[in-house]
Amino acid sequence: MSVVDDVVSVRLDDEKNALIILDQTLLPGETKYLTLTTQQQIWDAIYRLQVRGAPAIGIAAAYGVYLAAKQSSATEWAALHADFTEARKFLASARPTAVNLFWALDRMQRCLDACEGQPVSRCKAALLAEAHAIREEDEQVCKAIGENALALLRPGMGLLTHCNAGTIATAKYGTALAPIYLGQDRGYGFRVFADETRPLLQGARLTAWELQQAGVDVTLLCDDMCSIVMKNGWVDACLVGCDRVAANGDTANKIGTSTLSIVASRYGVPFYVCAPTSTIDMNCTSGKDIQIELRQDSEISTLWYKTPQAPAGIKAYNPAFDVTDNEFITAIITEKGVVYPPFEQGLAEIMK
Amino acid sequence: MSVVDDVVSVRLDDEKNALIILDQTLLPGETKYLTLTTQQQIWDAIYRLQVRGAPAIGIAAAYGVYLAAKQSSATEWAALHADFTEARKFLASARPTAVNLFWALDRMQRCLDACEGQPVSRCKAALLAEAHAIREEDEQVCKAIGENALALLRPGMGLLTHCNAGTIATAKYGTALAPIYLGQDRGYGFRVFADETRPLLQGARLTAWELQQAGVDVTLLCDDMCSIVMKNGWVDACLVGCDRVAANGDTANKIGTSTLSIVASRYGVPFYVCAPTSTIDMNCTSGKDIQIELRQDSEISTLWYKTPQAPAGIKAYNPAFDVTDNEFITAIITEKGVVYPPFEQGLAEIMK
Repeated sequence: MSVVDDVVSVRLDDEKNALIILDQTLLPGETKYLTLTTQQQIWDAIYRLQVRGAPAIGIAAAYGVYLAAKQSSATEWAALHADFTEARKFLASARPTAVNLFWALDRMQRCLDACEGQPVSRCKAALLAEAHAIREEDEQVCKAIGENALALLRPGMGLLTHCNAGTIATAKYGTALAPIYLGQDRGYGFRVFADETRPLLQGARLTAWELQQAGVDVTLLCDDMCSIVMKNGWVDACLVGCDRVAANGDTANKIGTSTLSIVASRYGVPFYVCAPTSTIDMNCTSGKDIQIELRQDSEISTLWYKTPQAPAGIKAYNPAFDVTDNEFITAIITEKGVVYPPFEQGLAEIMK
Repeated sequence: MSVVDDVVSVRLDDEKNALIILDQTLLPGETKYLTLTTQQQIWDAIYRLQVRGAPAIGIAAAYGVYLAAKQSSATEWAALHADFTEARKFLASARPTAVNLFWALDRMQRCLDACEGQPVSRCKAALLAEAHAIREEDEQVCKAIGENALALLRPGMGLLTHCNAGTIATAKYGTALAPIYLGQDRGYGFRVFADETRPLLQGARLTAWELQQAGVDVTLLCDDMCSIVMKNGWVDACLVGCDRVAANGDTANKIGTSTLSIVASRYGVPFYVCAPTSTIDMNCTSGKDIQIELRQDSEISTLWYKTPQAPAGIKAYNPAFDVTDNEFITAIITEKGVVYPPFEQGLAEIMK
């Protein structure tokens, strides 16, 4: 699991007052770390997907607001709180769909709220400890999801995944890729199919790269090939991550996940959503309540290309996510256990 | 319909002993015509998709074998027949899936067979007339498909298409795009969604370009977005072309068509296959009998890109086509009429 141990997508360099992130937009060609010291730089890195993956975004935002507080010249709690809140609102505006961003910022906010009246140095230390805790807990959560998912799989299975829910999308292990890494260590010999995941190619650039580094048998697919590979009988299960799960199990994840889930259902292939409980939003009744981020047309028509591969001035529709209907989800795999339909009931119990 | 009238994908320049084709691999950036004089050049142009689209491939092959015969130094029918047959076998090997290639070559073969004993000049003249007839009939066929399809549509509808079954894929009008062009002339105001169609981007490069030139309201999509656009309620019908239709209605078309058909079925969106009867292969019982062309991994991992967008050495699976099961097809629209399920019966009747 060298890639899991060697590559850290987000970490704090407290001495340098900096957030260090792996620039995921340069993979697989270049492994470059960025040193971010301003709130604007952190916002940009989240918006531009230099750091991406719902858990990794949450960790980056937690360290981000810690750094804002640390750099504040406030001398008492109320002024620090004001500076913190400004930074929090700013970072929360970077991406609308992944609930972990808000979950992590809320958790940091509650930490600072609880420090009311304490000296600013104690407040800052508490925020640092909280951000570290968010990061460390994510690693444990991902490992537990991996174990819970692996229990549903058998050696030699063909697995299809979409986008990147791997080690670099989290503190470590990933969510959808966690069982693959754990299985690889235990000689499961999975054959993995990675959707390239247009338009941003997270599957081709990130998942294929991660799995290749880890020595996993991986085959790259275009997103429109899911039907033929399932008809060929090559896929025993689909594993995907998620950006937000509603109380009824409807799941927002990378654009294309819903398409994949419908095709899996047609072929009777189990469709598993790997979800840290931090991505489950019980305030969200169904997928209809989830705001879908729309991104720029140019990500489809010109990004990556030597020359534009669509006519100049063409309109495009570029939603970053879609919602997979709960009816197409076989199970939601969390760190606390596996939830089966009916999801309203199962999710409510696990979130108690 | 300027694009329909102005752009000719395949034509013969008999004086120059040349096949003139629009190089579709350079669109939309460059509109360049190639002058092909050798059989190897024609084979390459078909293999490399410089000329593509099942009907256009058939026309190119028909002119191709005509040119081989014309350039033959044979002085009597048998020797001419031998030269012709060699060229025919060679061109037939360029792509395995589109039946029009074989259909057009068979028709040319029958034409030459019927000339047995005649002087070579008469044989060559007959082959020229036959190739012209294939081209002219295709134009009439496409127009008739367009009229038959348009009768199933209403003004203002949202239409989704995959790959390019447009004017440049045929002699004129296209198949799946024919009703859109005819509707555009009659003020139907269709809103068209064009799948970009990975890996070769025929939707982004060709369909979006054709429709934009014709003034049609067109929006480009990634292939994995079909579920969200249908859930949004934006799509009233899907229209696709085909490379081969089996006797039971199973349809080979560009990779991703099967995925799209399954998603359309889930949302109750009618799924129409636009098929010249020349693509209906009654010798093929079902989709299982259709050979699927596999193409190079590099078309997925490196083609078009400034830098490779997948790790070096990654395996890819790159089928050029998939088979859409007849259960997901609402109707097959031919120049002779619209065929509804059960397709075995309807196709047998129309092919009598």
